[in-house]
Amino acid sequence: MANNFVESITNMEDDFAQWYTDIVKKAELVEYSGIKGCMVIRPAGYAIWENIQKELDRRFKETGVENCYLPMFIPESLLNKEKDHVEGFAPEVAWVTHGGNEPLQERMCIRPTSETLFCDFYSHIIQSYRDLPKVYNQWCSVVRWEKTTRPFLRSMEFLWQEGHTAHATAEEAEERTIQMLNLYADFCEEFLAIPMVRGRKTDKEKFAGAEATYTIEALMHDGKALQSGTSHNFGDGFAKAFDIRYTDKANKLQYVHQTSWGMTTRLIGAVIMVHGDNNGLVLPPYLAPVQIAIIPIQQKKEGVLAKAYELRDRLGAFRVKVDDSDKSPGFKFAEQEMRGIPMRVEIGPKDIENNQAVIVRRDNGEKITVSLDELETKVAELIPTIQREMLERARAHRDAHTYEAADMAQMKEIADTKPGFVKAMWCGDSACEEQIKEEAGLSSRCMPFAQETISDTCVCCGKKAKTLVYWGKAY
Amino acid sequence: MANNFVESITNMEDDFAQWYTDIVKKAELVEYSGIKGCMVIRPAGYAIWENIQKELDRRFKETGVENCYLPMFIPESLLNKEKDHVEGFAPEVAWVTHGGNEPLQERMCIRPTSETLFCDFYSHIIQSYRDLPKVYNQWCSVVRWEKTTRPFLRSMEFLWQEGHTAHATAEEAEERTIQMLNLYADFCEEFLAIPMVRGRKTDKEKFAGAEATYTIEALMHDGKALQSGTSHNFGDGFAKAFDIRYTDKANKLQYVHQTSWGMTTRLIGAVIMVHGDNNGLVLPPYLAPVQIAIIPIQQKKEGVLAKAYELRDRLGAFRVKVDDSDKSPGFKFAEQEMRGIPMRVEIGPKDIENNQAVIVRRDNGEKITVSLDELETKVAELIPTIQREMLERARAHRDAHTYEAADMAQMKEIADTKPGFVKAMWCGDSACEEQIKEEAGLSSRCMPFAQETISDTCVCCGKKAKTLVYWGKAY
Repeated sequence: MANNFVESITNMEDDFAQWYTDIVKKAELVEYSGIKGCMVIRPAGYAIWENIQKELDRRFKETGVENCYLPMFIPESLLNKEKDHVEGFAPEVAWVTHGGNEPLQERMCIRPTSETLFCDFYSHIIQSYRDLPKVYNQWCSVVRWEKTTRPFLRSMEFLWQEGHTAHATAEEAEERTIQMLNLYADFCEEFLAIPMVRGRKTDKEKFAGAEATYTIEALMHDGKALQSGTSHNFGDGFAKAFDIRYTDKANKLQYVHQTSWGMTTRLIGAVIMVHGDNNGLVLPPYLAPVQIAIIPIQQKKEGVLAKAYELRDRLGAFRVKVDDSDKSPGFKFAEQEMRGIPMRVEIGPKDIENNQAVIVRRDNGEKITVSLDELETKVAELIPTIQREMLERARAHRDAHTYEAADMAQMKEIADTKPGFVKAMWCGDSACEEQIKEEAGLSSRCMPFAQETISDTCVCCGKKAKTLVYWGKAY
Repeated sequence: MANNFVESITNMEDDFAQWYTDIVKKAELVEYSGIKGCMVIRPAGYAIWENIQKELDRRFKETGVENCYLPMFIPESLLNKEKDHVEGFAPEVAWVTHGGNEPLQERMCIRPTSETLFCDFYSHIIQSYRDLPKVYNQWCSVVRWEKTTRPFLRSMEFLWQEGHTAHATAEEAEERTIQMLNLYADFCEEFLAIPMVRGRKTDKEKFAGAEATYTIEALMHDGKALQSGTSHNFGDGFAKAFDIRYTDKANKLQYVHQTSWGMTTRLIGAVIMVHGDNNGLVLPPYLAPVQIAIIPIQQKKEGVLAKAYELRDRLGAFRVKVDDSDKSPGFKFAEQEMRGIPMRVEIGPKDIENNQAVIVRRDNGEKITVSLDELETKVAELIPTIQREMLERARAHRDAHTYEAADMAQMKEIADTKPGFVKAMWCGDSACEEQIKEEAGLSSRCMPFAQETISDTCVCCGKKAKTLVYWGKAY
């Protein structure tokens, strides 16, 4: 295994897909499993997910979210209750037909998402306005029978959280939908250092069964878009299908209004493709399971290892590891870089003599010689600096790869030559959306909250434009 | 829903099973789902599981455990690789036969446990002694097709953690097996306030495919035993079936030695049945999601609610909630008791006048009038006191219901009249174990680490005894 780290990985400029695959494998994030389309998330990958969970869960709970757990099975009759929803998901579910040695009377699918289960649950526990709102979430895995899969980005089984809420009024549901979308975007920007475009999906792209779907969209290093989180307002459509009603203060029966919202292990794919480079993974410090690797130089010389451990203890406010294995320093550097550890501290006999250490930043390679007296201060200053600069760099990259198109000729030229987001006006007609997809190969990513007027006419048909849309090629 | 709390629940003396069911329902721990044998774990129940996870995971990581995530599917051919294991589990798995609209070439079961998946994984990532040990764990759900189910105690799908390790030597594997068993027992005693008997399972009761299974056994309030956690030493049996080998320092190929260990949501059932009473759930304070309920009396009077919030803020070191709903104080008391919140603080106009509050302990009903000046000190003192006394009470109950039997007549008499553990000597012969099960209805719980000599002869056959065994009726 060890040799993986010093083998060079494919350059992203040569083959971005292969570069991605090399990283997930050589940073030991993932191992392929015997089941096609399913992956093993190894400790280095899972520790990233744990940090995402912890921070996201903390932010959820601040807004009143409560966690629960619903069964992984959905009886076929339950899945069939909401028409649009079943049409969206039935073609891609896994079916359980036997329990032990006996065939089931009714087959069950493994949840591809749990709207139907939450609706059934809510129909049992919601009776009065006093029972509202319900703001529940679960952390679990879901299964979707995908034909083409890639680690983190698209797999048959993946980990996620799914929030499902029920409210007394349409306004409150809409408010929660937007609140969670903004929570997602803030989380991605502040914790993953990935800038997001926040907006609403067109009708064509919205979730099966939703009245409105909101999304956050990120731009990967190769100029492709990644849908990174969605938040759906269901109105009372599911409530009517599942008969979820409450008696209001005037003792009248009313349908609840519902939302759902989710983020997945796909975020790890986003981190790789936004921040990674040709030496491997680059993790933003707030997210990184290990923030600092202390690497002793000439560690067999007296006092070196002891000093390395001393520095580790002094940096106890951070997540630090000493690499005291018997590998060479050069090997350890390559390994730390491949794994994306945000900072390494090199300490050898000469450094000790000079009461200094060398800090090397993973994100930009900068070497900083620092007096040991100032080590804690310098590290405490560098952590937020790296975090901030990684976000700024990603934002600059995205902005430099965001283009404007006024007509189809421009649109196609950009699509053919410049990978990135294309901002263009749209009349609101699905026919134009389809045509843009067909002719330019760009799908609508979202109608951004931050609207601008680029021109007055639809980029496709030339009729009066209604809204600005971000278009792109997407993962 | 609200009325559930003031409805009386069944007395445990009248019908323990119904008392249990009433509690899980009325403390809102669980809701039955549309899928037979599957339950919804509601926020009040899930928050308990989250606290168990957090504390257990912290203890795991202190011993070097790393978390990962493996797929939920096991291809039939993989499950079939280890003979004893497949015989133990195949009759109780759920089979997936279709993905989307297409039948699968090979059916897959949903993991009932993941030994086979970990073995397959380890066979890919272990090559050298440098790759050892692997001490991995995953938090997930598993599925076993049970005929009779009860919330938390036995359900088709349940949540658990499963640790799977691979070691260079048999000694190291045995050491880890015992280490994790002791970790489990310490956790249960210190965090759940449930005393455990630690010991080894007989060959008849050991895990499918294991060389040795160790167990912790608790005694419920009704005198029945509950297996609360197990730790298995597999030797190199799985390694041989899955060809998991490493090159040792002398460059020779060796099989690894493996262990696995798990605890489940069943622990919540144990907490209910060890600590609960006829007013509902009783949670030990370290485990309780809410440790203190502040209940304002005459809350509409000026200053009462403000004082309640002030006390909450002063008790910020603990997990505190103010019940400021419009229910009556009596109703709130009943609700707090049903939910098992370890302590309530009553504060009303007269209390404020006298600069005092009334603390009521959930575990023993004791009322303590405390000066507001000493509130934080008193609460900080009571939390560990309650925790300790709950463990002592549970231990006293268990010890009072642990009996000794020297011959089969005694054994049967105890089994018929005194619910509890029976300590009796055993010759080591499975035939005697079977006979005891048949005649007295008692199964062997474990051969305890703390051995004693009650007599020299086997309680069943009268031949020379080899070991002391705990026997009991089990959930």
